[in-house]
Amino acid sequence: MTADATVMRHISQRAQQREVVGFHGVPLPDHVNRHLSPISLSGGRPHEGFYPLTKITYEFKDHPFGEPKVAEDASKLDLKRALNYGPTEGFPQLLEFAKDLVLLTNKPGYSGWNVTLTNGSGDSLHKVFNLLLDPGDTVLLEAYTFVPTINTIGSWGGSPVPVPINFEDGGIDVDYLEQLLEGWFQGQYQEKPFPKVLYTIPTGQNPTGLSLKESKRERVYGLAKKYDFIIVEDDPYGYIQLGAFTDGVDNPFDDDTYDSARFVKERLLKSYIQYDSDGRVLRLETFSKVFAPGARLGFIVGHSELIRRIIDHSNISTKAPSGLSQVSVLSAIAHSGGARGWIEWCVKVSKVYTERKNVLIRTLLESEAYKKGYFKYNEADAGMFITIDLNLPEGDDHRLELEGLRYKAIEKGVEVVLGKNMAFTPEYAKSAKFIRLTLATASDNDELIEAARRLSQAVLSFFEQ
Amino acid sequence: MTADATVMRHISQRAQQREVVGFHGVPLPDHVNRHLSPISLSGGRPHEGFYPLTKITYEFKDHPFGEPKVAEDASKLDLKRALNYGPTEGFPQLLEFAKDLVLLTNKPGYSGWNVTLTNGSGDSLHKVFNLLLDPGDTVLLEAYTFVPTINTIGSWGGSPVPVPINFEDGGIDVDYLEQLLEGWFQGQYQEKPFPKVLYTIPTGQNPTGLSLKESKRERVYGLAKKYDFIIVEDDPYGYIQLGAFTDGVDNPFDDDTYDSARFVKERLLKSYIQYDSDGRVLRLETFSKVFAPGARLGFIVGHSELIRRIIDHSNISTKAPSGLSQVSVLSAIAHSGGARGWIEWCVKVSKVYTERKNVLIRTLLESEAYKKGYFKYNEADAGMFITIDLNLPEGDDHRLELEGLRYKAIEKGVEVVLGKNMAFTPEYAKSAKFIRLTLATASDNDELIEAARRLSQAVLSFFEQ
Repeated sequence: MTADATVMRHISQRAQQREVVGFHGVPLPDHVNRHLSPISLSGGRPHEGFYPLTKITYEFKDHPFGEPKVAEDASKLDLKRALNYGPTEGFPQLLEFAKDLVLLTNKPGYSGWNVTLTNGSGDSLHKVFNLLLDPGDTVLLEAYTFVPTINTIGSWGGSPVPVPINFEDGGIDVDYLEQLLEGWFQGQYQEKPFPKVLYTIPTGQNPTGLSLKESKRERVYGLAKKYDFIIVEDDPYGYIQLGAFTDGVDNPFDDDTYDSARFVKERLLKSYIQYDSDGRVLRLETFSKVFAPGARLGFIVGHSELIRRIIDHSNISTKAPSGLSQVSVLSAIAHSGGARGWIEWCVKVSKVYTERKNVLIRTLLESEAYKKGYFKYNEADAGMFITIDLNLPEGDDHRLELEGLRYKAIEKGVEVVLGKNMAFTPEYAKSAKFIRLTLATASDNDELIEAARRLSQAVLSFFEQ
Repeated sequence: MTADATVMRHISQRAQQREVVGFHGVPLPDHVNRHLSPISLSGGRPHEGFYPLTKITYEFKDHPFGEPKVAEDASKLDLKRALNYGPTEGFPQLLEFAKDLVLLTNKPGYSGWNVTLTNGSGDSLHKVFNLLLDPGDTVLLEAYTFVPTINTIGSWGGSPVPVPINFEDGGIDVDYLEQLLEGWFQGQYQEKPFPKVLYTIPTGQNPTGLSLKESKRERVYGLAKKYDFIIVEDDPYGYIQLGAFTDGVDNPFDDDTYDSARFVKERLLKSYIQYDSDGRVLRLETFSKVFAPGARLGFIVGHSELIRRIIDHSNISTKAPSGLSQVSVLSAIAHSGGARGWIEWCVKVSKVYTERKNVLIRTLLESEAYKKGYFKYNEADAGMFITIDLNLPEGDDHRLELEGLRYKAIEKGVEVVLGKNMAFTPEYAKSAKFIRLTLATASDNDELIEAARRLSQAVLSFFEQ
């Protein structure tokens, strides 16, 4: 009996059927020559310059009980508590911060809400869809989205249905959504159950960087109520606000312009949970984007009964998030001065992202490719991504062509994400003419400028080959 | 429409059916007067004196990119990498350590094995049972075990079947197991599918503290091969070895007695994975017991194909474990001097646990309750738990009586875990006459002595009430 035969026979149906599909395109063919010093505008890895934490020093003992005990301090989370088993939902100190932040920024429209920490938003999504989906249940999503979510939905038996994006409105096309729901049983998805969940990234949407207008949010929430579905609001990027593109040096987040109250009032759009009256919104936040992804820490805000069941799920699986992550985030929060100070850190982060957006777009607009009309840029409102649209005919299948553009970009030394790879149906993959560029990863403006030049050359070569 | 009605209607069957049952007994009745300064011999929370890490110092910046970049050092895991997104299976540096440790202590009997990190053994169990179990599948377990595992098995539809413990052999009763398997289709469980998995804690078993003899391990593995089941070997406690009880001050782990090689050779029993020839053993280790539970870090060793699928599961759920946890464990490893130094730390930990075991048992044996024959102690081989047996008649249902003993213990000021609460069938809960005591939580020997005295008084009062 070979080892392989033995192990294969014991794998559950569930594990055999699990699909994990990435979105970074197909393997490179041999004829593509990689650049020796590529710059990444793909992925969403924030450069370490964005992390508030710069240094950690550890001290160890050489024998158990060999040194004075770890000091105790009831007022905050000390190391003794952080290192031991902790509450599954997270330490009270960090839950309190999360609630403070929610109350300052996105106060739910009803009182019976609660919060639980998770191991980041990937873990949140896994638990939220476990909570909501029975096999076969329909989930609506933006037609272009963070596609790994599809794997998670699929792992619980959910069935995704795309809703197009209205670029004018900054997000999900509400008219389309209304008609889709109204005519569900006569429409193209009539064989599927009526939708149970809308998964959406309303602010700084991935990949578009758009934020849905508040008037449209109100309408979407009204549809959720009328048609009785749950809104899963994924908001990893909302605290990174982007000023409108300017050719000059204007930056709305220049020093001392925004305190936390003004930033919240003038810049942050209302969360769906602020419209919520009956506990049908689950809001997902993360510490990945403005603290550090490696902390693997996020939280979910929602109806206390739903939160209780998510904690039950954690009880039989992950248990509590890392105490070392929690104590490091709590230290950063203490350093910044609590929830208001945390928001002011977000203003500073927004300033850098806005500057990067201006630098990247400005360089693209100066290029020959732009001047020849080969692409246009899309204004992005929030988050770490912008997109540019290639000047290709409507209605055709652009998938193969765009793969060719990607090869050219790689040869010129810049990595990008093709819009087609952020679609989860062939229909939207075919028609995608955009590419996604991240502002997060470059080490400085000069690197972004170089990346933009390389990309422009790739586009030029693509259109003039 | 009330909020509660809305949310309840949207909860999946899976989430509605999830059961999370703890094992710390029923709520206290009003007539029980809690002691004002209770000492815990329940739970498994190691005292902070056991953690090698004594202090963490963080440094922060006040503006993104406002200070020199985090230093880069290709030779080990630097903060820049620890704080960003990392590989789902863990950083290569920590995987390499895990493999070094496996090779030094428990080298698998075949070559195609691999390792993945997880968020601790609770997470490992969740992923392992997801991998192996289809709804209805039968899992064999020691009749007294770490009962939260039952919740995890149940969440994937598994059905647990108890196998008794043979105290002479130090673990699972192999004769019983053989007969159970041989006569499965004529036996009491004939309605259930033939067992697919044996979940076992062969070393320092929870709750008994026993370690199964190697000759019996060989027989169990032979049965796994003959009857084609998978062995899930949970080994959180194996590196904590306990010397045999002595009334004196003898401690086999006194300074400089054991280097890592001698400790491994003379003290560690063979893992099932060392007998494995065809990839049917999944071995679970954790950093919780000899580093810190709050790290939420563990790893799984097994056939590379199974490990690949577990990583796929992590890809759609937890992603990588905390980078902050990983960098802190890596620092501790570097401080101790790699895998050999790590094992030498375990020798030092074993020394303290052995001393605690001697102190606890010695105090119990000096008590009036012991001298009157009301209980006997059981020798424990490894881990953080010992048990004592109460002198109660065989064959009766002791559940209500033992709850009464627990109330007395609480009034005297000591918390214990009743054996009945570590059974998962009424049959074994009824016949349990033992209580479990942890060596891990007390701050020093004096506290253990006081706890033992209180417990003895509670036992005396229980028998002479």
